[in-house]
Amino acid sequence: TKRSLASAGFRIETDSFGELQVPADKYYGANTARSLMNFKIGGPGDKMPIEVIHAFAILKKAAAEVNKEFGLSVELANAITKAADEVIAGDLDSHFPLVIWQTGSGTQSNMNINEVLANRAIELLGGELGSKNPVHPNDHVNKSQSSNDTYPTAMHIGVARSITNVLLPGLRTLETALEQKATEFKDIVKIGRTHTQDATPLTLGQEFSGYVQQVKNGIARVESCLPRLYELAAGGTAVGTGLNTRIGFAEKVAANVASITGLPFVTAPNKFEALAAHDALVEASGAFNTVACSLMKIANDIRFLASGPRCGLGELTLPENEPGSSIMPGKVNPTQCEAITMVCAQVMGNHVAVSIGGSNGHFELNVFKPMMVSNVLRSSRLIGDACVSFTENCVNGITANEDRISSLLHESLMLVTALNPHIGYDAAAKIAKTAHKNGSTLKQTAIELNLLTAEQFDMWVKPEDMLGPK
Amino acid sequence: TKRSLASAGFRIETDSFGELQVPADKYYGANTARSLMNFKIGGPGDKMPIEVIHAFAILKKAAAEVNKEFGLSVELANAITKAADEVIAGDLDSHFPLVIWQTGSGTQSNMNINEVLANRAIELLGGELGSKNPVHPNDHVNKSQSSNDTYPTAMHIGVARSITNVLLPGLRTLETALEQKATEFKDIVKIGRTHTQDATPLTLGQEFSGYVQQVKNGIARVESCLPRLYELAAGGTAVGTGLNTRIGFAEKVAANVASITGLPFVTAPNKFEALAAHDALVEASGAFNTVACSLMKIANDIRFLASGPRCGLGELTLPENEPGSSIMPGKVNPTQCEAITMVCAQVMGNHVAVSIGGSNGHFELNVFKPMMVSNVLRSSRLIGDACVSFTENCVNGITANEDRISSLLHESLMLVTALNPHIGYDAAAKIAKTAHKNGSTLKQTAIELNLLTAEQFDMWVKPEDMLGPK
Amino acid sequence: TKRSLASAGFRIETDSFGELQVPADKYYGANTARSLMNFKIGGPGDKMPIEVIHAFAILKKAAAEVNKEFGLSVELANAITKAADEVIAGDLDSHFPLVIWQTGSGTQSNMNINEVLANRAIELLGGELGSKNPVHPNDHVNKSQSSNDTYPTAMHIGVARSITNVLLPGLRTLETALEQKATEFKDIVKIGRTHTQDATPLTLGQEFSGYVQQVKNGIARVESCLPRLYELAAGGTAVGTGLNTRIGFAEKVAANVASITGLPFVTAPNKFEALAAHDALVEASGAFNTVACSLMKIANDIRFLASGPRCGLGELTLPENEPGSSIMPGKVNPTQCEAITMVCAQVMGNHVAVSIGGSNGHFELNVFKPMMVSNVLRSSRLIGDACVSFTENCVNGITANEDRISSLLHESLMLVTALNPHIGYDAAAKIAKTAHKNGSTLKQTAIELNLLTAEQFDMWVKPEDMLGPK
Amino acid sequence: TKRSLASAGFRIETDSFGELQVPADKYYGANTARSLMNFKIGGPGDKMPIEVIHAFAILKKAAAEVNKEFGLSVELANAITKAADEVIAGDLDSHFPLVIWQTGSGTQSNMNINEVLANRAIELLGGELGSKNPVHPNDHVNKSQSSNDTYPTAMHIGVARSITNVLLPGLRTLETALEQKATEFKDIVKIGRTHTQDATPLTLGQEFSGYVQQVKNGIARVESCLPRLYELAAGGTAVGTGLNTRIGFAEKVAANVASITGLPFVTAPNKFEALAAHDALVEASGAFNTVACSLMKIANDIRFLASGPRCGLGELTLPENEPGSSIMPGKVNPTQCEAITMVCAQVMGNHVAVSIGGSNGHFELNVFKPMMVSNVLRSSRLIGDACVSFTENCVNGITANEDRISSLLHESLMLVTALNPHIGYDAAAKIAKTAHKNGSTLKQTAIELNLLTAEQFDMWVKPEDMLGPK
Repeated sequence: TKRSLASAGFRIETDSFGELQVPADKYYGANTARSLMNFKIGGPGDKMPIEVIHAFAILKKAAAEVNKEFGLSVELANAITKAADEVIAGDLDSHFPLVIWQTGSGTQSNMNINEVLANRAIELLGGELGSKNPVHPNDHVNKSQSSNDTYPTAMHIGVARSITNVLLPGLRTLETALEQKATEFKDIVKIGRTHTQDATPLTLGQEFSGYVQQVKNGIARVESCLPRLYELAAGGTAVGTGLNTRIGFAEKVAANVASITGLPFVTAPNKFEALAAHDALVEASGAFNTVACSLMKIANDIRFLASGPRCGLGELTLPENEPGSSIMPGKVNPTQCEAITMVCAQVMGNHVAVSIGGSNGHFELNVFKPMMVSNVLRSSRLIGDACVSFTENCVNGITANEDRISSLLHESLMLVTALNPHIGYDAAAKIAKTAHKNGSTLKQTAIELNLLTAEQFDMWVKPEDMLGPK
Repeated sequence: TKRSLASAGFRIETDSFGELQVPADKYYGANTARSLMNFKIGGPGDKMPIEVIHAFAILKKAAAEVNKEFGLSVELANAITKAADEVIAGDLDSHFPLVIWQTGSGTQSNMNINEVLANRAIELLGGELGSKNPVHPNDHVNKSQSSNDTYPTAMHIGVARSITNVLLPGLRTLETALEQKATEFKDIVKIGRTHTQDATPLTLGQEFSGYVQQVKNGIARVESCLPRLYELAAGGTAVGTGLNTRIGFAEKVAANVASITGLPFVTAPNKFEALAAHDALVEASGAFNTVACSLMKIANDIRFLASGPRCGLGELTLPENEPGSSIMPGKVNPTQCEAITMVCAQVMGNHVAVSIGGSNGHFELNVFKPMMVSNVLRSSRLIGDACVSFTENCVNGITANEDRISSLLHESLMLVTALNPHIGYDAAAKIAKTAHKNGSTLKQTAIELNLLTAEQFDMWVKPEDMLGPK
Repeated sequence: TKRSLASAGFRIETDSFGELQVPADKYYGANTARSLMNFKIGGPGDKMPIEVIHAFAILKKAAAEVNKEFGLSVELANAITKAADEVIAGDLDSHFPLVIWQTGSGTQSNMNINEVLANRAIELLGGELGSKNPVHPNDHVNKSQSSNDTYPTAMHIGVARSITNVLLPGLRTLETALEQKATEFKDIVKIGRTHTQDATPLTLGQEFSGYVQQVKNGIARVESCLPRLYELAAGGTAVGTGLNTRIGFAEKVAANVASITGLPFVTAPNKFEALAAHDALVEASGAFNTVACSLMKIANDIRFLASGPRCGLGELTLPENEPGSSIMPGKVNPTQCEAITMVCAQVMGNHVAVSIGGSNGHFELNVFKPMMVSNVLRSSRLIGDACVSFTENCVNGITANEDRISSLLHESLMLVTALNPHIGYDAAAKIAKTAHKNGSTLKQTAIELNLLTAEQFDMWVKPEDMLGPK
Repeated sequence: TKRSLASAGFRIETDSFGELQVPADKYYGANTARSLMNFKIGGPGDKMPIEVIHAFAILKKAAAEVNKEFGLSVELANAITKAADEVIAGDLDSHFPLVIWQTGSGTQSNMNINEVLANRAIELLGGELGSKNPVHPNDHVNKSQSSNDTYPTAMHIGVARSITNVLLPGLRTLETALEQKATEFKDIVKIGRTHTQDATPLTLGQEFSGYVQQVKNGIARVESCLPRLYELAAGGTAVGTGLNTRIGFAEKVAANVASITGLPFVTAPNKFEALAAHDALVEASGAFNTVACSLMKIANDIRFLASGPRCGLGELTLPENEPGSSIMPGKVNPTQCEAITMVCAQVMGNHVAVSIGGSNGHFELNVFKPMMVSNVLRSSRLIGDACVSFTENCVNGITANEDRISSLLHESLMLVTALNPHIGYDAAAKIAKTAHKNGSTLKQTAIELNLLTAEQFDMWVKPEDMLGPK
């Protein structure tokens, strides 16, 4: 009868609801096929993130190893492990078609990985796909596990790896580049701006040092979330009690995951919290949100400082990466600033979605898991990628327009401040107000008002002496 | 025994939990006093908004009138009405001490108004405060009502009045001022800026006309929410069925509220929705959020266009309203822009709080009511007030620095675009690129390159001809 | 030299920055290829939404037709139109590889469509790909256009179509299903719940009627945004002035778009607003946010009412769509409720991203365009799809557990309210309190307390008489 | 002339814009009075938070002490210190009338404290109010300071103190109470719920232990923000360079603030970051947001577990604090859960406002300071206060309804899981499905199906053996 149901290019798989056709060239089974039928929601961007799939495979491999100690045959465990390695390597990505918008526990994605690993292990062992023999998706691949603890485990593995491999390297790339610019620009004295208005001077290097500090702090903020992401729910099974697992299973699985990933994962101290709440993701998302605010500020500054070329501030020149306009030569659009600020807005929005999901857990399970993790992973990747793009295509190539910077600096009326100790506040104010009214320079005005000589002005008004405490 | 319990300056009031001391000079009773004991949360900004209190009084007055038709004695109804009028006039504000962070249905604030009106009516009728005789807070003031329908009714009345009396007038004040500026500036040709970079010209009036359109649309957006805010829950009582009310009560109360307020209130078409969800507040908050985005854009533009005076864009001058700095004359901080952009950020945050509350109703009642309405009312008032402040202290006094605008415009390399039809894109590009490289003017460069004469340049490069379709 | 640069499978394309290899089997050109090099940000979900691409093709077709009147040769215009029709039909989707995180004006996606249409038109006319002859991407396809006005035009076309074709039909499907359930359940009297606590009764139909009202209002809210989305920026070109267009171009393009789409598009009344601000998207997103709050409430109610089967409320039974658990028979997880509530949280987060982008426009251009439109389109599709999935896989199959509903209703202590008019509040309260204390029924307690007879109880305590005003 | 301008009850004060009347009984001066005229925005909840005022006084005292080393006369410094002590003690709160919605640098509030301290110090020294002699608000009170560094310093002092004095104590109070309940309930076995549906059992103590872990983590999250809040901007003056300060000033001021407050404040490592960005506030707000998500989850659980009394889950009984309804005895509304969940929604909204402000700094100064700090302080206080209220009025009094819990547990079909090892999954499934269909108990069904004896059932189905790994 299985044969009769199966069409060309399909085979029959079964779950407790009955039989279903699945594509013959896919390893997944009936649970996955049924989910595809029931959740036709979203477009190409709405797939379960591949980072979750790979993290699941790491977990399944780690569990198979531990299960050898608790009764799983070595042969089956090894086949599962080999199949898991293929998933980790990215070779089986096309066998994971499910969307984010499924059951909120990610149960169907847990079954997807169970089915794929079982069928691939069956194949490795010479069995028939869909037979669940000799490898059963539930009994063997999912042994001592439940969606309720595996999915959050995969969430933490996936997010911690993304932060470690994508986000933090991206931030460090940007930090280094900004630090180099801060050094390169350390002797360029320029006008400061507060309230967007002219203010007392600082060096361009000092200005960039503020950006360096922001990114440095951002790295620290993200790193400070990692300890709680390194805590794994595995071993909690259905409601956190660990029913149907063995004493030691949780700790051994976490140790194996740590060994596979090279990251210091441990078993979560309280499994009830680990299933019912995902505060660790809300926390990480909060760190990303802070980083997004920092990057928005930095990128905004850079595009405004580079505005022009003639009618803006014009203090910086950004690399030209692409045609700005078919009409206007010299028009360089700060496109990398635009890309990264759009990313920042997205990350800030994602954070709200994560927070709302995180606040809506009920009883022993939070069922906003796929939505939460997909946003956290997207934010992590977007920030990491955007930092690299921004660094390589913008920051590294920033140059200072020293003539323009110097010209603006010396036009500034607030240099009059330097005269206060010599001629008093009132006389200094008279110079500044007169110069402002007449559109003349401070020096010219000061001389015209007979308040000081040209030599005195040049001796006393030195922006380079206004850059720090005395 | 009442006497023995009462201290100096206190009297004894009772509710179904027992007796409590209340200050002798307050009209509120035991329910209010008990709430003060149980909800010690927040500071001076965390009181139930006075707009809700006044709206409650309008409702109680409207209900008292209708209840005359359904058995309430005329004498009692009139006393309640008179007391309500005093609350509406703001004379009894100090008798409403409760905080937002109470029961999520606002029950205690409903009892607060019931108690105050009852005691004041008792006083008017010569009775003893706290005696509930001849006016009972529940039986008479709250007749045919429940907190579950009165609080949302007061929400709608309060918000609709705030929008009508504060928010929309504020927006219209700003719209008018911006429109005047658009007219005033209609002949001032200036450089356009896209991507913060120099672009083709437009008039300053055209630039301001975009702001006018944004505010005009904002007014329409807010107005389009009003019909759903005009729907009142009154008559739904406990769960929306209208149990313990009389047929016609709901319609008559809405009509009375309309008559008292001069606003077209009607009874809600579905009372179950009106108690269990507050989508109308989420919707209104969404309109405010859009307005906040518009105002943020406008205020940001204005402060950047006014940046300087020497080292910024410097196209606009804003009124000087207060000392900028004790050091720098001529430093005008765009403080009104700063105030209104802070308001915008607050409104956008309030909107998220309102949305979260709105999404979390359960079964027959949403219990995030006081939080929701307090944010909506705060946003309404902040926008309305900030628009007036921004208009009077900033927009009305904006002047254009025509010399600076003209100077920037004529320095701009993109005017070369006008030469395309005459000498071709390639030759025009050569002029622009050379001018950019040498820091020279387009005209000077064009002549040096022997591509056209000074007369030709002056004839062909006219920014005032680049302002519209041909 | 072109030949020497080109590798097997590649051809050379040029832009003003020089030459670049592009895959020989793609129609896009150098601008697109350069963008791919400069913006390596994000994963498979970060592509420019296909709805924007199709909308762009609609616009390009509409413009080509109008340009015939303004000097574009009929042959070229027809070839562009034919190519555009292929894009609209979805046949060329694979030629649009760019990501959201590019220049904030979407310039590169405008060039992507210009390049694809030009090359495809060249091919149709027998020319050589990449030759820009006889069809030039800028001069012909982009004639009278600028990214600055085409991208926002494509945004509005894409969003309006998505709302009309996906979101609103989804909401209407749900509305109809809920309305049918409200009718089906109109005679089932059940306990009401306020504050999650037992309250006075209503019918299950009344409860569902509240959901119907919410969805009905949601449809009205979304529809009320459409007029402003129907306003098109086309004709504004670089900064909104319409430089380089012809009088009438804007109006005719909008009319053509209306004709192609069957939607009432018009030209925007103020092009400066249409380029520099995207308040219409913020507004639409705000409507989606309100709908998300409604749907979150409805789905939460349904899953709580269906909680159990033994240890929850158990009033509703949801369809069983997939295996709940390998361990527990009878465990039906409300997976469709979970999918749609996750969607709601996402939509609420997207809304914040859209709002932040919308508030950050500067001068003549908002450069958060691709981020904004991608979120609005994603929200529209997710809500639309989720409503259909939720309706078909959940709402349509909801059944009422009438025995359970009746049993809970008659256990409820608050039915005592019905005795107030007969034996007075105090005696009624005594019955209720005693029953609560003893865990007995109201009837049994009332008889034991000798307050009324069994016959009286049955006559007076009728939940079906507590469902409306008298 | 001063005399002639002054009305009864007013005196004349001056700033660089001229003379103004101020109330004779207030210590503030012209800058403050002018701000009151220019910023009429908001209601009673829109005042500059008193925590900022007190923090300012701490800073001014700390600076006065350091300024003695740098030339300020001991007599004046001591008078300023004495005046500052009065502000710190809260004795002069009524002299700080300004609103949040002023200049975004908080300049006017800096001048408010300068003016109040100067006038009070003048008074202490026998001088005339408004004379600026012998204590000048700028020259002496503000010596070596600028609004640009003092306001962010006050922000950090105020927030760190609020976290330390209000928020963390509140969280610890709740943590302790939840921990006591976890212990008290450790032996009560109950049904677990996942997806809101019946699941395998756990103890009520285990369930509460998850809450304990959430709050414990929340405390750690908030504490991890403190190091960056302990960094003070003081010494950066106008743009971060420290112009007009002396070497060592910054470090000594921070040390003094640490000494006054008992908190480990240090000088910020980079003053440019400290003025231009307020990422530390965004970070703290992010921690609060995570805490809000935790508390929302906990309070939601508690109110649902206590739902009923007859028609809900009914596992917990909450303390009765106030009359629930005048109609229904036994109706206890979970009002404390409602108050705290409303607080959580507010905190989540405040977080978005803070993030938007934090992302919008420009150049050397972020000008969203008062908005940002007011939200952070409000969130801190609301969480702290709400935790105490929730603990004292709800958590401490929670009791378990052991009969109800036991009854639900033993009705649950999922106990059948325990039979798997004895009779196999299929037979167990048959029992469960039959019981579900017939509405009968597992035991009764098992016996009827002749699958096991009553004795076997009682021996094998023991929920208390399903609470952990074996």
